[in-house]
Amino acid sequence: MTEKIILDCDPGHDDAIAMLLAHGNPEIELIAVTTVAGNQTLEKVTRNALSVARVAGITGIPFAAGCSRPLVRTVEIAADIHGESGLDGPALPEPTIRLDPRHAVDLIIDEVMRREPGTVTLVPTGSLTNIALAARKEPKLAERVKRVVLMGGGYHTGNWTATAEFNILVDPEAAHIVFNEPWELIMVGLDLTHQALATPEVMAKVAAVGTGPAKFVCELIDFFGSAYKQEQGFDAPPVHDPCAVAWVIDPSVVATRRAPLDIELTGTLTRGMTVADLRGPAPEGCRTSVATELDHERFWELIVDALQRIGEVDTSQDPS
Amino acid sequence: MTEKIILDCDPGHDDAIAMLLAHGNPEIELIAVTTVAGNQTLEKVTRNALSVARVAGITGIPFAAGCSRPLVRTVEIAADIHGESGLDGPALPEPTIRLDPRHAVDLIIDEVMRREPGTVTLVPTGSLTNIALAARKEPKLAERVKRVVLMGGGYHTGNWTATAEFNILVDPEAAHIVFNEPWELIMVGLDLTHQALATPEVMAKVAAVGTGPAKFVCELIDFFGSAYKQEQGFDAPPVHDPCAVAWVIDPSVVATRRAPLDIELTGTLTRGMTVADLRGPAPEGCRTSVATELDHERFWELIVDALQRIGEVDTSQDPS
Amino acid sequence: MTEKIILDCDPGHDDAIAMLLAHGNPEIELIAVTTVAGNQTLEKVTRNALSVARVAGITGIPFAAGCSRPLVRTVEIAADIHGESGLDGPALPEPTIRLDPRHAVDLIIDEVMRREPGTVTLVPTGSLTNIALAARKEPKLAERVKRVVLMGGGYHTGNWTATAEFNILVDPEAAHIVFNEPWELIMVGLDLTHQALATPEVMAKVAAVGTGPAKFVCELIDFFGSAYKQEQGFDAPPVHDPCAVAWVIDPSVVATRRAPLDIELTGTLTRGMTVADLRGPAPEGCRTSVATELDHERFWELIVDALQRIGEVDTSQDPS
Amino acid sequence: MTEKIILDCDPGHDDAIAMLLAHGNPEIELIAVTTVAGNQTLEKVTRNALSVARVAGITGIPFAAGCSRPLVRTVEIAADIHGESGLDGPALPEPTIRLDPRHAVDLIIDEVMRREPGTVTLVPTGSLTNIALAARKEPKLAERVKRVVLMGGGYHTGNWTATAEFNILVDPEAAHIVFNEPWELIMVGLDLTHQALATPEVMAKVAAVGTGPAKFVCELIDFFGSAYKQEQGFDAPPVHDPCAVAWVIDPSVVATRRAPLDIELTGTLTRGMTVADLRGPAPEGCRTSVATELDHERFWELIVDALQRIGEVDTSQDPS
Repeated sequence: MTEKIILDCDPGHDDAIAMLLAHGNPEIELIAVTTVAGNQTLEKVTRNALSVARVAGITGIPFAAGCSRPLVRTVEIAADIHGESGLDGPALPEPTIRLDPRHAVDLIIDEVMRREPGTVTLVPTGSLTNIALAARKEPKLAERVKRVVLMGGGYHTGNWTATAEFNILVDPEAAHIVFNEPWELIMVGLDLTHQALATPEVMAKVAAVGTGPAKFVCELIDFFGSAYKQEQGFDAPPVHDPCAVAWVIDPSVVATRRAPLDIELTGTLTRGMTVADLRGPAPEGCRTSVATELDHERFWELIVDALQRIGEVDTSQDPS
Repeated sequence: MTEKIILDCDPGHDDAIAMLLAHGNPEIELIAVTTVAGNQTLEKVTRNALSVARVAGITGIPFAAGCSRPLVRTVEIAADIHGESGLDGPALPEPTIRLDPRHAVDLIIDEVMRREPGTVTLVPTGSLTNIALAARKEPKLAERVKRVVLMGGGYHTGNWTATAEFNILVDPEAAHIVFNEPWELIMVGLDLTHQALATPEVMAKVAAVGTGPAKFVCELIDFFGSAYKQEQGFDAPPVHDPCAVAWVIDPSVVATRRAPLDIELTGTLTRGMTVADLRGPAPEGCRTSVATELDHERFWELIVDALQRIGEVDTSQDPS
Repeated sequence: MTEKIILDCDPGHDDAIAMLLAHGNPEIELIAVTTVAGNQTLEKVTRNALSVARVAGITGIPFAAGCSRPLVRTVEIAADIHGESGLDGPALPEPTIRLDPRHAVDLIIDEVMRREPGTVTLVPTGSLTNIALAARKEPKLAERVKRVVLMGGGYHTGNWTATAEFNILVDPEAAHIVFNEPWELIMVGLDLTHQALATPEVMAKVAAVGTGPAKFVCELIDFFGSAYKQEQGFDAPPVHDPCAVAWVIDPSVVATRRAPLDIELTGTLTRGMTVADLRGPAPEGCRTSVATELDHERFWELIVDALQRIGEVDTSQDPS
Repeated sequence: MTEKIILDCDPGHDDAIAMLLAHGNPEIELIAVTTVAGNQTLEKVTRNALSVARVAGITGIPFAAGCSRPLVRTVEIAADIHGESGLDGPALPEPTIRLDPRHAVDLIIDEVMRREPGTVTLVPTGSLTNIALAARKEPKLAERVKRVVLMGGGYHTGNWTATAEFNILVDPEAAHIVFNEPWELIMVGLDLTHQALATPEVMAKVAAVGTGPAKFVCELIDFFGSAYKQEQGFDAPPVHDPCAVAWVIDPSVVATRRAPLDIELTGTLTRGMTVADLRGPAPEGCRTSVATELDHERFWELIVDALQRIGEVDTSQDPS
């Protein structure tokens, strides 16, 4: 049986690859894509999501725009890493599909509530504003969702500050809401995603697929890799967001450990930190886990496989 | 021209009187009532709002239920002051009108956005969760609303803690959102509402109106007064929420002073405090004001006048 | 019986006047003066204290320098108000007395511990670093001191931020220590000292004393008044520090109210705030009070009287 | 040339072993021992220090008691781990040496300031209250000390909370002072000390030394091991404090990495956390390091060697 997921994202280079992986992998049924401000403004990441849909040939599912800013903090974007467009590097085609008129928050609620309980997994790969608002607007959401598998945080590594990761830091109050809802939550954080390096070896395999979407991924990684090299000193860039999708496809690719998790809201040095209590076995009833170890080879096989299954995509059609 | 208001409340004894004042006063056009958890659970305060509508003869406008809990904090109610029902004291009739199917957040957005800009005043008299979510879900809300006139906070007096007032303390993150949106905001806080005492003299005038709604107000104040006497040592209870409505009716009844306002989110002793900077004249462009002085006599005249205009209400009809 | 006090200060215009009041008033026995960084650097305020001693003819008691910076915060001074020297305005004579070799913290401990319990009042008029360190170094200090009467804080007015007063804000951790020791504490804060205005009428009376020290006070107030006018918009400057000494002389000049007090250490907007719980009568055993109302006329009579008793002071002697 | 150290401790089982290591190792000249409340009350840990001196035959150096409580927080002890005496397990002999009359803070200042600059290393293995007060009382201390090598903290592991280690959590404000003074600081934290396990193999070697002090160590570890097994699930207990001494003896036994360090004071979940910024190479001028890897074998060889050098100690002499 396939896993139905809603991808809530802010494309973003690695978000785009997460879309491609979710679309191409046969274990996943991508039922909707929603967007949230983060790597760039809401307007830009939403347009990017639609462009990526055209590149990948994703059709027949709703795309909806969500929140344009965090709950409490002022908006912060990551232009240093993702460029002015949020998806700098490849040429982006004009979108051919239209946005759903619903707000992402309503789309998430609708798509979850109209399906059988426990059948939809939420996969947020941006800040958690949409998911948090959906949880507050529909208190029954938590019991209807299968689980939340998110990219964000770390135990206890940071990138935007010494202890905080960008997606969480951007809207820590939203993260606090999402991490404390009574659903199962898998945190795929920096500890894991810094293992998902796009090395020259794996990029050669991606390039060898030889299709338009594969070339698109290569161009994304080219830009992303240069930015990561310059901003954070990485030799090969970590490809964060597809790791969350990979867990949904096959949990054995991403080892996890159950541990209590919470979000620090008041720290001077630690605001936005995902605090994991790793001092012993998780207490009974603990619903949260952290991703600990990536099977790097199989992870990249999943990416290559997804691209092969997507194959060539005709983007010549006019976006009228 | 009348002032169109949406009353966002958690009835609650003083919320009920605010509804009566808004309904009975000719300067106000009450266009919707929305509810939020606070003085009691969402279920109870929503039922109370509908019951008060029947007592007051309010019909033809939408009532909608909103958020059942604060954004980040766990839920807290004020049963010590408002009793088990949230409106203990008078016998409450079965509601005769039905709830609008929309979520309060959507109703607020819809009612504001479909009207001319600058024509709707939001009057929150409970915690600010609904208003905050509406502002985040519809970023254009702030520029479409005329202003926000809220009951909450103080400079720098508290009731639930030494420095925080209940409505703000219950959901300080929501308050932070609302106080920082770019709309004009009048904070009618404890400094003002502790002047709005329901003394025996004014209650005699209310009783003299002689109608069912007036008797209902007297019974509310009887219970509320006993609770305030026991919990906070007041000889006559402060009737908070109608003060916000009174400002909308006639700003000369409630003197205000422009001052920068913000919400403390991280204090150990001051979380939920509404911090007013009263050190000098407000800086240019300051959009926030605090209510400072009540004209006690005229305030109660407004209450009595509203009750007289409402007159007798037939509540015999069957709530089928 | 006279009241033995140790004045712990950072002169500072109003500190200087506090020294003069303590020296000239017959109810007070000034047994030591200690200094702490604050209005200016430790070096400057210490030299100022010694210069004021010469101006006022204070001899035969120890003067000792204390802490040059706050416990946790980085150092902050108030040059906008007190000028480059910390005591700008009058010409300052070279000191004639020598500093005690002891650290102020040790001097405070020694002078308190060698006297009968309950006979020494500490009067801090600067940041509380010295007093806090003394309390931590000698845990029995709190039970040996008669009480602490300090200038600082407010309920809930601020000057350096919307809710914090300079002396407390400069070293909130020290204030937290001092406010939580088990001694009686009288907080003479901005609410009180903003009543102690050096109006032209009272300054005329000071000038009429006609002595060198009186002229010195007038010159202090001239500079201080201009600074306060420019920085905080006061028509006549508030003369803070002598108010604490005035309470020791005659508590009927400074009305107080017992109330729980504590220091906010973690607030974003409220760090360094002195949080007073004024919601009802103080609980039994409450050892802290806030000064509420000044008898302005008698306060200035005390100042004038002290200057008259000090009389003329010979400062011609060579500071060899 | 030997390294002169002042050991500032709260014995405590591992503190006692640190004393023995410092005393027995020929690279170290132990010039003073000071005590601070922590593992148990000041009175108990001070008596323990003197008893350990008798067991180890330490004479001719001053021992002084310091602070009995943290700067701001209320006192907390670790009786679960160290027992009622703070050193449960072995029979403790009556001390034969007398306490120095100076306060530990003054002794630390005196012993550092009267020696050549850069010749004394401070080795705190308890909470940092004494060191912090010494730094504030004598601002020149930081430039006179060679360095501070402390046991405490972690990056980012905790024991008393998910992210805070006991010594730091007990007095985070003192830690903030110590970590921000301009001296070189080596933090030997839980990441390192959890590698210093007293396994049966190493304890067999200790026992084989066959002397009274060696037997004393075995008895300490017996009790400590049981407590750690029960409280934190360790199979063999981590022997924290001697690791800091080991670094002073031979830095190659304890690998370190330079990184910016600071103390979180305001976090709800992270108060007392030692925040290390490990995102890249340390910035130029960074004076702080974290201990990362222990050479377990050589560490225990140092312990065994120290015990062999101490040899048998005559404790029969009367403590009169």
